[in-house]
Amino acid sequence: MVTPTTEPLHALYRQHILSVEQCTPPLLEALFAQAQAFARRIEAGQSTTVLDGAVVANLFYEASTRTDLSFQAAVQRLGGRIITTAGGVHYSSVTKGESLPDTVKTIACYADAIVIRHPLQGAAREAADASDALGLTLGRAVPIINAGDGIGEHPTQALLDLYTIKDRFGPRLDGLTIGFTGDLRNGRTVHSLIKLLAIDGDQVRLICMAPEALAMPHEYVQFARSRGIEVAETDDLLTVIGDLDVLYVTRVQKERFVSQHLEDLALRAFGTHLDYLDTETQRALRPVAEIHAAREYERASASYIIDEMIMRLAKPDMILMHPLPRVTEIPADIDQDARAYYFRQVQNGLFIRMALMAAVLRRQG
Amino acid sequence: MVTPTTEPLHALYRQHILSVEQCTPPLLEALFAQAQAFARRIEAGQSTTVLDGAVVANLFYEASTRTDLSFQAAVQRLGGRIITTAGGVHYSSVTKGESLPDTVKTIACYADAIVIRHPLQGAAREAADASDALGLTLGRAVPIINAGDGIGEHPTQALLDLYTIKDRFGPRLDGLTIGFTGDLRNGRTVHSLIKLLAIDGDQVRLICMAPEALAMPHEYVQFARSRGIEVAETDDLLTVIGDLDVLYVTRVQKERFVSQHLEDLALRAFGTHLDYLDTETQRALRPVAEIHAAREYERASASYIIDEMIMRLAKPDMILMHPLPRVTEIPADIDQDARAYYFRQVQNGLFIRMALMAAVLRRQG
Amino acid sequence: MVTPTTEPLHALYRQHILSVEQCTPPLLEALFAQAQAFARRIEAGQSTTVLDGAVVANLFYEASTRTDLSFQAAVQRLGGRIITTAGGVHYSSVTKGESLPDTVKTIACYADAIVIRHPLQGAAREAADASDALGLTLGRAVPIINAGDGIGEHPTQALLDLYTIKDRFGPRLDGLTIGFTGDLRNGRTVHSLIKLLAIDGDQVRLICMAPEALAMPHEYVQFARSRGIEVAETDDLLTVIGDLDVLYVTRVQKERFVSQHLEDLALRAFGTHLDYLDTETQRALRPVAEIHAAREYERASASYIIDEMIMRLAKPDMILMHPLPRVTEIPADIDQDARAYYFRQVQNGLFIRMALMAAVLRRQG
Repeated sequence: MVTPTTEPLHALYRQHILSVEQCTPPLLEALFAQAQAFARRIEAGQSTTVLDGAVVANLFYEASTRTDLSFQAAVQRLGGRIITTAGGVHYSSVTKGESLPDTVKTIACYADAIVIRHPLQGAAREAADASDALGLTLGRAVPIINAGDGIGEHPTQALLDLYTIKDRFGPRLDGLTIGFTGDLRNGRTVHSLIKLLAIDGDQVRLICMAPEALAMPHEYVQFARSRGIEVAETDDLLTVIGDLDVLYVTRVQKERFVSQHLEDLALRAFGTHLDYLDTETQRALRPVAEIHAAREYERASASYIIDEMIMRLAKPDMILMHPLPRVTEIPADIDQDARAYYFRQVQNGLFIRMALMAAVLRRQG
Repeated sequence: MVTPTTEPLHALYRQHILSVEQCTPPLLEALFAQAQAFARRIEAGQSTTVLDGAVVANLFYEASTRTDLSFQAAVQRLGGRIITTAGGVHYSSVTKGESLPDTVKTIACYADAIVIRHPLQGAAREAADASDALGLTLGRAVPIINAGDGIGEHPTQALLDLYTIKDRFGPRLDGLTIGFTGDLRNGRTVHSLIKLLAIDGDQVRLICMAPEALAMPHEYVQFARSRGIEVAETDDLLTVIGDLDVLYVTRVQKERFVSQHLEDLALRAFGTHLDYLDTETQRALRPVAEIHAAREYERASASYIIDEMIMRLAKPDMILMHPLPRVTEIPADIDQDARAYYFRQVQNGLFIRMALMAAVLRRQG
Repeated sequence: MVTPTTEPLHALYRQHILSVEQCTPPLLEALFAQAQAFARRIEAGQSTTVLDGAVVANLFYEASTRTDLSFQAAVQRLGGRIITTAGGVHYSSVTKGESLPDTVKTIACYADAIVIRHPLQGAAREAADASDALGLTLGRAVPIINAGDGIGEHPTQALLDLYTIKDRFGPRLDGLTIGFTGDLRNGRTVHSLIKLLAIDGDQVRLICMAPEALAMPHEYVQFARSRGIEVAETDDLLTVIGDLDVLYVTRVQKERFVSQHLEDLALRAFGTHLDYLDTETQRALRPVAEIHAAREYERASASYIIDEMIMRLAKPDMILMHPLPRVTEIPADIDQDARAYYFRQVQNGLFIRMALMAAVLRRQG
């Protein structure tokens, strides 16, 4: 027996999950209902066997403890199995010079789905195309799950973020004010979440708070406004903190600065993507990129720290979110504040990924 | 109920799998029948529990995404469990200076079988000896599966290669012409496949195509001829491509050149195997080895590229094989050609490893 | 039905396992009985499902093949699942600057228990505190299992050591003479074992044999004596070897010297723990620490080698133990001696960890 709400999940069966743009309001509702059902099962200590016999590959081209372990746990808590390269694919493929499509096609011969994490935007799409091409030959296209591709998308993060807000404030978010701060330029999690909020269609109000160099790219502001969402921008957190129902903080990510400078250097010096340069050249560019990155990082990271003083100005029922890992943006003593919701996000990430993997790998109903 | 053909698999129960020389024609027939049966189960979406309760260790001293994940998937698709060091064993053992036999004996205390991959020829045999020695003391010798030891053997690769050919051309290969090209000197996959073809005993005809520096070692040519197989050698692919039923291409492997130069340097400068030198010395030898290797690599890798033009000269029902990973030997646009069989090889690798692990770990019938 | 002896294991249910000091004689008896029961099941080829549905995370901040694989095998032989970072957590967290407590809290959202290995003393306690803090917020404190924290504790090693001795000499050890040699200053395994022997309360006699620089710290000698255990110290193995029932050898650990010098340098130069320095500073200190360490290591490692000559002086029923990995302390040809018990220790480690994980994760009876 399947409850009526899980029916829209049919749409995900054997599909690539590349972008939040694949979502629709009924799909989100069904996915969140399924996540909640799995959450209750786990709290009750009940195991599930819905993925019994399924094998999922984690293909991580950059280390990401949180996302890696979350998918490992999600698949196994559903009874499925994980095959994993644990960073090894990176070194192996670099040494032997294998292309991403070849690696994906290979793993597609072993697994029923591939969770991919890659430092470059577009890698998940490239993986999906490779899987589809193999499917034409061998009659078997394996779903690709995007677990973050550079400054591109990280759909499961956006899904767990929206799920966390709805889990707290209810299914309709009309009238809520959601603030974003930190590195809004490079922070893909906020980009994806804004898109998802726009797709979901509730009448929220967004406030973006960042210094000029880290401002939210215009396209996301435009996208939200085109869907009827009010977006304000400011560089002063203090004047608006009292209005917020949600404060979403992102890390000022040093490695994103480095990657961006590397990409810039590759484009300017060689007229191509960093990825297409050989390893030696990539290595040679790194020191220059690191010097530039370090300077910008120092300046930016000091801008917004959510300390006790700031929290005193916030509403008593505001929730404080962060995709983690954090560095200095939120001091550890804030963790005891009941409004600190970032580890709830982590927990919800497990439930969302369980719901997603079940929908992709098992026909519902 | 077990079909009569699986009976020869009894011979593999609790045995080390080190070399294709352990195979016999009836064993091959039984193994391939079992692989085919597992393939059908997977295509039908049925899971198996034949390795329920079994624990297999993947002990990889060098990264090999394909082989590592293939064994991980094979064991888990049979219901077994994997313990894995994911490259960590290497760093750990180097730091702490543990010998290969000690590591093997340790892991033999935890696992029911050990799949080993190592950059040095003879490592799998050394591991098997260690397992046997421990077995004398503790009454429990754990089977060692050779997943590639340097320029030594890689038996499961040869098995999947032969299985792929027979899956396409039928159980008897008499009259087929099989061409090998690329690095035939260092390519252990072609060495093992030639041995296996000779053991299998069908009257195939082999053509080895390589430049002088990468020519097939005389011993393999001799071995095949001693079993009544006709072997021709040429350095001109174009004149023979039209005769081939199978074209087996191997990568010109840069890292094999490096390893070989490192080994040569170690022998000449210190009179010993590289493996017995301390890490610092090994590291010091590397730059010299890399310079020599780079030169040879450039020269050799340009020799044979299987592009569309070459494929136009090939038979319409020839199959094009490659052990992967490839670099430039086969351009990606050949993948859409129905004769491109290298991802089928990958897929067959899963089925062969399932059949093998089942035979080693579970008593048949 | 549970036999009466397993009843004290209730005390471990959902508890952190940080130190051997948590043990009591009845608990040890129950744990060893459970370990023996699991050993028998494995020897009989029977699988268990006691951890069916449970997910355990291996969080290793330093490579330790033996311990890592042992826990992986223990959990999976009980039917549980493993999520693992395979060294990746280290690189990931260093790059992104995540603190140990944040990583632990994150993984606690995915797993039912966390096995932690860390190069710094006190890390396991810090992890347990983080788990408890999260438990206050989310209502779910996840047990932390200490798998070695620097020169701190490694309780499962001590448990398997004591289990090995009792498995050989029976449940009461009164009258046995146990010798320790090697690096008794930094060897946490001997520290934990001495504590555990004192807690267990049998009237054993201990002989510590080490050069001045590597002598057993006074606190452990004191602790044992305060529990009525006789402790002698000598720097001459030859005069006492004939009296020993157990000879426990430890590696002279080069990396411990390095860590210690790094810690010393950090304290002297910056007045803080090495862990609190940024990566660049840590890296800058390393060469100096390594030079000092190398000198001491050379001197110390030559002191005690247990070769055939020494073994001829030992009792015919003495057992020779070593926590492994060994370097040169015990030559490989001693392995064939029936008194060589170090691989039995490895095997017993699996059984002990199965018993422990079952007790922590499943309510008994």
